[in-house]
Amino acid sequence: MAEPKENVLMEKIVSLCKRRGFIFQSSEIYGGINGFWDYGPLGAELKRNLRDAWWHSMMREREDVVGLDASIIMHPMIWKASGHVDTFADPMSTCKHCKKLIRADQWWPLMCEQQWTQSLAALTEPVTNRFNTGDLLKWAKGRGKQLAPNLALVRNPEVTISWLVQEAEKGKHPADAREFYLYLATEQLGATGFITPCPHCGGELTEPRPFNLMLQTHYGPVATDENIAYLRPETAQAIFVQFKNVFDSSRVKVPFGIGQIGKAFRNEITPRNFTFRSREFEQMELEFFIRPDEAVEALHGSVATVPSQGHPGEPQPNWGWQAWHQYWVEERVRFYENIGLPRATLGFHIQQPNELAHYARATVDILYKFPFSKEEDGEVKGDELEGIAARGDFDLSQHEKFSGKPLGVFDEEVRAAWAKLPDARKQAMREEFIEAKTRTGIDKKKLTPADAAEAARKEADAFFEKLAKGQFVPHVIEPSAGLDRLTLALICNAYSEVTKTDDKGKSETTVVMKFHPRVAPIKVAVLPLLKNKPDLVKKAQAVRDLMRPWMNVFYDDGGSIGRRYARQDEAGTPFCVTIDFDTLGEKPDLLDTVTVRHRDDGRQERLTIGELLNWLLARVR
Amino acid sequence: MAEPKENVLMEKIVSLCKRRGFIFQSSEIYGGINGFWDYGPLGAELKRNLRDAWWHSMMREREDVVGLDASIIMHPMIWKASGHVDTFADPMSTCKHCKKLIRADQWWPLMCEQQWTQSLAALTEPVTNRFNTGDLLKWAKGRGKQLAPNLALVRNPEVTISWLVQEAEKGKHPADAREFYLYLATEQLGATGFITPCPHCGGELTEPRPFNLMLQTHYGPVATDENIAYLRPETAQAIFVQFKNVFDSSRVKVPFGIGQIGKAFRNEITPRNFTFRSREFEQMELEFFIRPDEAVEALHGSVATVPSQGHPGEPQPNWGWQAWHQYWVEERVRFYENIGLPRATLGFHIQQPNELAHYARATVDILYKFPFSKEEDGEVKGDELEGIAARGDFDLSQHEKFSGKPLGVFDEEVRAAWAKLPDARKQAMREEFIEAKTRTGIDKKKLTPADAAEAARKEADAFFEKLAKGQFVPHVIEPSAGLDRLTLALICNAYSEVTKTDDKGKSETTVVMKFHPRVAPIKVAVLPLLKNKPDLVKKAQAVRDLMRPWMNVFYDDGGSIGRRYARQDEAGTPFCVTIDFDTLGEKPDLLDTVTVRHRDDGRQERLTIGELLNWLLARVR
Repeated sequence: MAEPKENVLMEKIVSLCKRRGFIFQSSEIYGGINGFWDYGPLGAELKRNLRDAWWHSMMREREDVVGLDASIIMHPMIWKASGHVDTFADPMSTCKHCKKLIRADQWWPLMCEQQWTQSLAALTEPVTNRFNTGDLLKWAKGRGKQLAPNLALVRNPEVTISWLVQEAEKGKHPADAREFYLYLATEQLGATGFITPCPHCGGELTEPRPFNLMLQTHYGPVATDENIAYLRPETAQAIFVQFKNVFDSSRVKVPFGIGQIGKAFRNEITPRNFTFRSREFEQMELEFFIRPDEAVEALHGSVATVPSQGHPGEPQPNWGWQAWHQYWVEERVRFYENIGLPRATLGFHIQQPNELAHYARATVDILYKFPFSKEEDGEVKGDELEGIAARGDFDLSQHEKFSGKPLGVFDEEVRAAWAKLPDARKQAMREEFIEAKTRTGIDKKKLTPADAAEAARKEADAFFEKLAKGQFVPHVIEPSAGLDRLTLALICNAYSEVTKTDDKGKSETTVVMKFHPRVAPIKVAVLPLLKNKPDLVKKAQAVRDLMRPWMNVFYDDGGSIGRRYARQDEAGTPFCVTIDFDTLGEKPDLLDTVTVRHRDDGRQERLTIGELLNWLLARVR
Repeated sequence: MAEPKENVLMEKIVSLCKRRGFIFQSSEIYGGINGFWDYGPLGAELKRNLRDAWWHSMMREREDVVGLDASIIMHPMIWKASGHVDTFADPMSTCKHCKKLIRADQWWPLMCEQQWTQSLAALTEPVTNRFNTGDLLKWAKGRGKQLAPNLALVRNPEVTISWLVQEAEKGKHPADAREFYLYLATEQLGATGFITPCPHCGGELTEPRPFNLMLQTHYGPVATDENIAYLRPETAQAIFVQFKNVFDSSRVKVPFGIGQIGKAFRNEITPRNFTFRSREFEQMELEFFIRPDEAVEALHGSVATVPSQGHPGEPQPNWGWQAWHQYWVEERVRFYENIGLPRATLGFHIQQPNELAHYARATVDILYKFPFSKEEDGEVKGDELEGIAARGDFDLSQHEKFSGKPLGVFDEEVRAAWAKLPDARKQAMREEFIEAKTRTGIDKKKLTPADAAEAARKEADAFFEKLAKGQFVPHVIEPSAGLDRLTLALICNAYSEVTKTDDKGKSETTVVMKFHPRVAPIKVAVLPLLKNKPDLVKKAQAVRDLMRPWMNVFYDDGGSIGRRYARQDEAGTPFCVTIDFDTLGEKPDLLDTVTVRHRDDGRQERLTIGELLNWLLARVR
């Protein structure tokens, strides 16, 4: 199993990130801390630009979304209501010998990475996994003793091998590579079946048990169970919990959204892929609250149907959850396109009914094809940047139940429309409602048909009684994006190498970070041709000061212009402005003009200082 | 002790903050969580504007500061090196009866707030604190039993009172109100002296013990002592820890700074004064690294002296730490002035030698006069917004020591200058160095003069040996500001009430939030005169869309213009733009003009739509 080619690229990217100050390992001088990362000067600017782009597109360019900035530590009951205390867990096994923990779904990838499995695979027949007892014995007493000291085959080679032979005589062979390792870890089959070997030492793993991913702390003077608090594993819950406060204090009407950017924490067992899966990360989440379809139908006679693909256009009053969901998926793709991730770099994962939680109606994940993204069935689908979920009224209803505070809204239009609806229509809607809820009860909550129907009827009673009064708990569409993942995607997408051969045939490869000007950490570099000519310097500083209030400008007077261009290419600066003797009027008709050099193709053009700011603003905003 | 007047104002501010969506209690629907706060739509915008203003003034308007965005959870050894594990603690007492915890320095303020102390003060002679045994007995058996059930006087009134009388006969009277309460809590004086009463129940408090203020968590699969982590109590340490990475990856030279904005956590025992003292908060910290004075002297012959007051002007190469410290104090005051906090609203606290830590050379706190700020010696000094500390090389040196990684820099200019320095000069500098360090050793570290001199000589050897090679650990000036405190200061400063009386003599008081346009959450409101005239609406939306890419615009078509103005006054929007029939050309010479109404004085002026954007930009940026 050779190092895959993509990892060479990731290594280059990680190394550039450190060298140029995009991303450092957290606490590096203390040996680092696994799963935590720091953003250096360029990374901090890049991240800021992404936050700003998201906030701008969500809050400022729209009428129907407002912001929130909530605390990371919230009341612990919130995580009970959201289900995180009970179910936000990974199944984990412990090795009974070396005590390491293994996430059940990562057992096989970890096994594949180990030297001992690789040496065994080389030794045995890889397709059929049949074994030669002599080879196995030799391995167990030599290489195996070093690499997997707690494997049954190593601890008791004769016993294990004779058992393997016995099993083989009964016609029991391992079916594939995975099963082969289970055989080698087992001395003899007891009541519990095969033993799963620890990837690290070959020892016996326990059955997987749920391991909660929330980081815990205590606040207040004493650390007791009563003042346990969690570092939020997502920013979304704060939005639900503050829904009423925001609704009551802002001039908003359903449909509307609340957006938030902030840190969240998950105690990932095996953080990996650079910043992609880390323990501390930043989210950009929107909860967009809409009327339930029944209210839309009462108001508009029907719920609009939308094509299953493509942007459904400007929001319409007769949209139900499907149109809104589709709309937000397409809006988010537009956002990515606008900051330099073309659709072709993205992938989509539409969650299948069996993947969806009982309250979820649909979820579409937007993926990015990272260098470490795995090929599946012949294509690279990518890894998740953002999930857009239609979550019904689950979240607000849960918090209503757990807090005892009503979180519904009153909608006079709905009340009036409902009153005018013919009874037959009301009855039909009720029946549809019950049918859908019964189906979910059977399929997802595993209720008996009778129990599911009974529960659905009760829910319908409560729902329609309220709706008749114009009251409902809004439903929600949730576009939830990861800021660190997006930052990494942009870095990977921007990374490119250019090899130039000079006159003497010497070739040099340099890195050009092709960030979209909207997100580039530095927008423009101002470069006086020479630093020892006061007139050039003075002019260059004047140009710099002209741009500074409007964008991040970098002033550089060190080294040759070529070297300075190369430095800016590595930083991803889209434009370099050079102040030369023509700027000072050496050629009179070029007085007060500058050279603008384009990062991506090296093209240069001459602009007047007077037009420069607007020229740049049009490109970097 | 009546409710002080200022608290009435604070109550109004807290109430406005909730009503208009500036600040909500975190997790309010679950009863809240003490010491945590959420920012609603207007608060989130205000805070964003402040972050941007700080970042802009630090990173973009200067050449010599770069940014960092580090993780909240870092390697635990960092907090050992910084001293936080050992000394970041408040002295705390526990009540042996009710188990409540009291911060030692808050015992007296808490006592003053209690009903039982107030009723006792009313009962006894307030100045001399002499007592009447009859009154005390009656109180102990009645009111006292309810309010302070664990006070010695209440539990054993006869015994305590007879002891008090005995003491009085010996001529021992309480000296003041504080001592009076110690007497009442003590049955008879044992070896331990007086008993300190719990403010809540009158019970006995333990001796104060240090209580660490860092919030703890565990990362990784098992919660053991080895994977304890702390939520950072300040953002500064990340800057020191990443100093070398930033230095090596950015084109910076000492003097330069690294700035960071981010969350920090302190387990405050008694969070108070709204968001002023909370458990989760955001900091804006700059670490500005400078050459040690000895290097400056070697380079420039002497270290510049600066006037002890006022702005020392543009940075000069011959500045030592005092000039830089003075400079940053004045730069930060300028920053506050620029966002609408005039110098008169600020206070200053210059830490006295006995307040300074052994490594600190000077610290100036910038205070704001909050409505809850206490009067001391006849004047309100205010409460801390920001501290500007000259910390020498303490932080980098500590991390050098604990990490084993060199954190110094090499400075060719210093090496060259040192080589040319006459020996007598070197010797004189060395003697001064030793003298200063010896003084600190005696005064601050409490060493004997001989030990202090010995330690100072050793330090001098190491320091000057390195300096001769052009190597040194930079010294640091640290302006450290609290974002939540600043947000609260701006809200308090903006709050004003206007009372208008109409023709019928009916008066109404409304709130005007007079934010500086630079920080106001909404910069401009666009108001069509009527919402049912499509031409007006269309024109108003066009004006809105013109402003939107550049600033936060609010569009409002609901209610009378007067009511809409009032709503914007409460939100602190500096400008309202009204689109009326003249805009559409009813008076031809007013075609495409709008009315701009100023928040603070209600003044109105007519501008063309063409000039509006630049007019606004000039005011809001």
